[in-house]
Amino acid sequence: MSFRGVFPYLVSPVTSDGVVMKGILTDLVDHLVEAGVHGLTPLGSTGEFAYLSQQQRNEVVDTVIKANKGRVPVIAGVASTSTADAVAQTRHMINAGADGILAILEAYFPVSEAGVESYFTQIAKAADGKPVVLYTNPQFQRSDLTLPVIERLSQIDNIRYIKDASTNTGRLLSIIERTRGRMEVFSASAHIPACVMMIGGVGWMAGPACIVPKQSIALYEAAQKGDWDKAMELQRPLWRINEIFAKYSIAGCIKAALDLQGFKVGDPISPQAPLGKEARDEIAAVLREVGALS
Amino acid sequence: MSFRGVFPYLVSPVTSDGVVMKGILTDLVDHLVEAGVHGLTPLGSTGEFAYLSQQQRNEVVDTVIKANKGRVPVIAGVASTSTADAVAQTRHMINAGADGILAILEAYFPVSEAGVESYFTQIAKAADGKPVVLYTNPQFQRSDLTLPVIERLSQIDNIRYIKDASTNTGRLLSIIERTRGRMEVFSASAHIPACVMMIGGVGWMAGPACIVPKQSIALYEAAQKGDWDKAMELQRPLWRINEIFAKYSIAGCIKAALDLQGFKVGDPISPQAPLGKEARDEIAAVLREVGALS
Amino acid sequence: MSFRGVFPYLVSPVTSDGVVMKGILTDLVDHLVEAGVHGLTPLGSTGEFAYLSQQQRNEVVDTVIKANKGRVPVIAGVASTSTADAVAQTRHMINAGADGILAILEAYFPVSEAGVESYFTQIAKAADGKPVVLYTNPQFQRSDLTLPVIERLSQIDNIRYIKDASTNTGRLLSIIERTRGRMEVFSASAHIPACVMMIGGVGWMAGPACIVPKQSIALYEAAQKGDWDKAMELQRPLWRINEIFAKYSIAGCIKAALDLQGFKVGDPISPQAPLGKEARDEIAAVLREVGALS
Amino acid sequence: MSFRGVFPYLVSPVTSDGVVMKGILTDLVDHLVEAGVHGLTPLGSTGEFAYLSQQQRNEVVDTVIKANKGRVPVIAGVASTSTADAVAQTRHMINAGADGILAILEAYFPVSEAGVESYFTQIAKAADGKPVVLYTNPQFQRSDLTLPVIERLSQIDNIRYIKDASTNTGRLLSIIERTRGRMEVFSASAHIPACVMMIGGVGWMAGPACIVPKQSIALYEAAQKGDWDKAMELQRPLWRINEIFAKYSIAGCIKAALDLQGFKVGDPISPQAPLGKEARDEIAAVLREVGALS
Repeated sequence: MSFRGVFPYLVSPVTSDGVVMKGILTDLVDHLVEAGVHGLTPLGSTGEFAYLSQQQRNEVVDTVIKANKGRVPVIAGVASTSTADAVAQTRHMINAGADGILAILEAYFPVSEAGVESYFTQIAKAADGKPVVLYTNPQFQRSDLTLPVIERLSQIDNIRYIKDASTNTGRLLSIIERTRGRMEVFSASAHIPACVMMIGGVGWMAGPACIVPKQSIALYEAAQKGDWDKAMELQRPLWRINEIFAKYSIAGCIKAALDLQGFKVGDPISPQAPLGKEARDEIAAVLREVGALS
Repeated sequence: MSFRGVFPYLVSPVTSDGVVMKGILTDLVDHLVEAGVHGLTPLGSTGEFAYLSQQQRNEVVDTVIKANKGRVPVIAGVASTSTADAVAQTRHMINAGADGILAILEAYFPVSEAGVESYFTQIAKAADGKPVVLYTNPQFQRSDLTLPVIERLSQIDNIRYIKDASTNTGRLLSIIERTRGRMEVFSASAHIPACVMMIGGVGWMAGPACIVPKQSIALYEAAQKGDWDKAMELQRPLWRINEIFAKYSIAGCIKAALDLQGFKVGDPISPQAPLGKEARDEIAAVLREVGALS
Repeated sequence: MSFRGVFPYLVSPVTSDGVVMKGILTDLVDHLVEAGVHGLTPLGSTGEFAYLSQQQRNEVVDTVIKANKGRVPVIAGVASTSTADAVAQTRHMINAGADGILAILEAYFPVSEAGVESYFTQIAKAADGKPVVLYTNPQFQRSDLTLPVIERLSQIDNIRYIKDASTNTGRLLSIIERTRGRMEVFSASAHIPACVMMIGGVGWMAGPACIVPKQSIALYEAAQKGDWDKAMELQRPLWRINEIFAKYSIAGCIKAALDLQGFKVGDPISPQAPLGKEARDEIAAVLREVGALS
Repeated sequence: MSFRGVFPYLVSPVTSDGVVMKGILTDLVDHLVEAGVHGLTPLGSTGEFAYLSQQQRNEVVDTVIKANKGRVPVIAGVASTSTADAVAQTRHMINAGADGILAILEAYFPVSEAGVESYFTQIAKAADGKPVVLYTNPQFQRSDLTLPVIERLSQIDNIRYIKDASTNTGRLLSIIERTRGRMEVFSASAHIPACVMMIGGVGWMAGPACIVPKQSIALYEAAQKGDWDKAMELQRPLWRINEIFAKYSIAGCIKAALDLQGFKVGDPISPQAPLGKEARDEIAAVLREVGALS
């Protein structure tokens, strides 16, 4: 199986009592798959994985897999500070029917390069041949994947993708040049997807695709055809979405935007705060501008 | 109940299969209480709270409370990214018999000041009148407690202590001056305990006290008497312990040191690595120097 | 006058006694102008402006202007912590015949947004109508230009360009979208020039163009024609130059590379160290690979 | 010659046209020496060395030396990015009659440990046997002095003091333990002077001593006698001065405070801004509280 294209990071709709709202998550999955997304990624950063218990995480992924009905690949997030726990999570996700794993290392104390490498290697083993996407986000995580570690991990058969949320697009080109033929790169919302596609990226995995799926797909298709003028024409207004995400709290933004679009996904998990009126208005204006809100 | 003196951060001995080693933890509790420590703090940073499941955390605290048999106060760590989860943890710990709560805010996305304040306020409410110790560690956490937030939180009846691990001793003096009569300060191992006592601190909560309990108590008693010459004489060699902790991985250091002292507490939780031979020798030398290893 | 294309950041060849080597600098200018560069930028970061006295800086710029003989525009660096000093530098450079100013704010204590804005505004006034290029490098400078400040500065007539060395290409797109028609963006070596050109950049100002001028121009021309396949084909091997610059000391790299190419520009200014043998060999290999060393 | 006690960092009074106001600086020197300070330190960070030309720096030091008339030692600041320039500055200061050198390394690109060591070693050689004080301020400088480098530099005969402005008092204890008998430690305003004295420091060099000289001396004398209760009693209100310095711009604070005390030292050098009314009122209140303003 090969992953390519637009993979929205799904939100995790949870009531203030901690109950996963399966109905609304099912609706969102249907909406996105019908819009033509190429895959679904529950439990990415926008999915607030860091705020959910393991049981909540499992319910989110189970709901997505069930709602998806095999239409597109589902890549489930796995995140832990502990190798043993990450392996157990991976096994659960694969058994539940996930088509791939988005692997995230959390850390409290610093981790050595060897520790980082072994963490991801153990997840890959536990994934039972299913593809693994490395995820690295130096802004919110305390550990980072260095180029030599990425290069060594790319030698492992089923570690086949990386999503880097560093804002440093040059780093992606360095990764692409070093891992050609073994690993492919997805853009994060911190990068300009049109640029990442031009340097060799195969798509993007990001929160904003949840709220502008059609627009994201149109941009992906222009890039696929090598029509860079059109790609940039589509990219310019979409970039304002990313700017708003960077300005306000990410989970708050995406939940507010979905709410505006009629998906009652609730508030971000406390002590994160829901977006204020001003920010909501700002998001509404941008969504209207790109045709994602009427 | 008033907390004062030496409160070791207990390690969490866990097998590579994730089983809490209750026997060895019980032995350690006995050893420390017999050495004269004034309290016990399971699930501090040295307790690797960030690497344990909630069930493991509960077992650690239950074991400590049972082993302690009411001899000294037990302050149990509560740490989460989510307010609701922190409240649930607090209730569990209080029901299990904890005498106080060490409250830690973890974060993935940035949290607003209001969010930080509400998180700790909710924990205090859930603690059912038992004293709460605020914990802040800017080095390993993504959120920090500002002075105005600390000042407001000190107005809450049962938020009565703070442990700040920032290395900035001046910050402690600012806290002391602002919260006099409502909140008291414990030193972390990143501060010089003798200095913290001199500016008004009431003791320290830290990992090293696990391995040098008698020496820590002697220093505390000298400071209590205002014998600062003696306090500094005891402080100088002890400072080398802190230097080694800062140089190597904290959990690795303390587990190695306990192992050298005959407490088979195992390795730090993977992907953290156990200490290498050189570091172990360095720790052994310092322990011998201060009379904590024969 | 409109600036576009490849503007190498010139090195500042200085003996260990502090004497500016005018002959070798003249040769380098001739070499680059004959290679077809579109402009010259003395006293950029690669020009070690931060290590030179004002007299040395003046001699470097005077030498470049004299050697250039009006063939291409010369944009002289101005850098200071003090507004009054920056204004005096600007006047000197304009009087000496510079065609534009690369304006750099150094800082020791934090500077307010209003202070940043007034600093660049005063330089623009002193430039007597000549174009000003804002330079921002969050990695090496203590102050940063925020988007609102950049937007306000773009309203000043002769502040017409910006060079941002942040590695964050998305930030460039945000700048382009906000300042369209008033300000244009040059790529730094920390960005992928092909990407910056695609999103609307007008060229690049960077140290590496000193050592690969023809290759940089070929890439620029492919981008100008919208031939992005060719641009990326040229970009890929050139990217390794940037990687080496990021890995080793920038001034050391460029001086070593020029030395390998026969320009005896000497060592970086002490306490910066000249490159070791291994790094020199690594640079030589990359230069050969891209046809910049025989 | 041995340095001990309170060494105020003098401000550099400069008109908006860049003229050093020698009269007011002479008055300030007289005032401080009469108040009993143990030494004078022109061109420390509070002296805005980073904002002055070399000629202005020389005039400041010459004025201080002349005004002092040999009453107390004068330690002149030397700061550069370049070793050769630092050596030239050092020679000038020693020839002008300075009794010691406060040595500061500025940096733009990162400097290797060997580079840092050679920079300070060359200054020490140029100081012609006069004592050198190492200065390190990780908050405002881009390079730091590691413990091994400090230990090696302490082996050089006339490198005899260090002033570390890191806020990390534990680091001072580590330095004291490693360099005993060869190097002594002065407190910065970021540390609590009473604590630094207790762990073995010999005084402090800091901006606040300019505005509270008598109070600083009283605290020093209490510490000298080992009367820590009194030292802390004096320390508590004085700490608020440091808090205000940390809250607002340092040079702005000290110049405003001196202005309130009748020394018309002018504004901080632009683009630094003078303090607003609210901050001035806050400083006035604290000065009154400690008896430094009537």
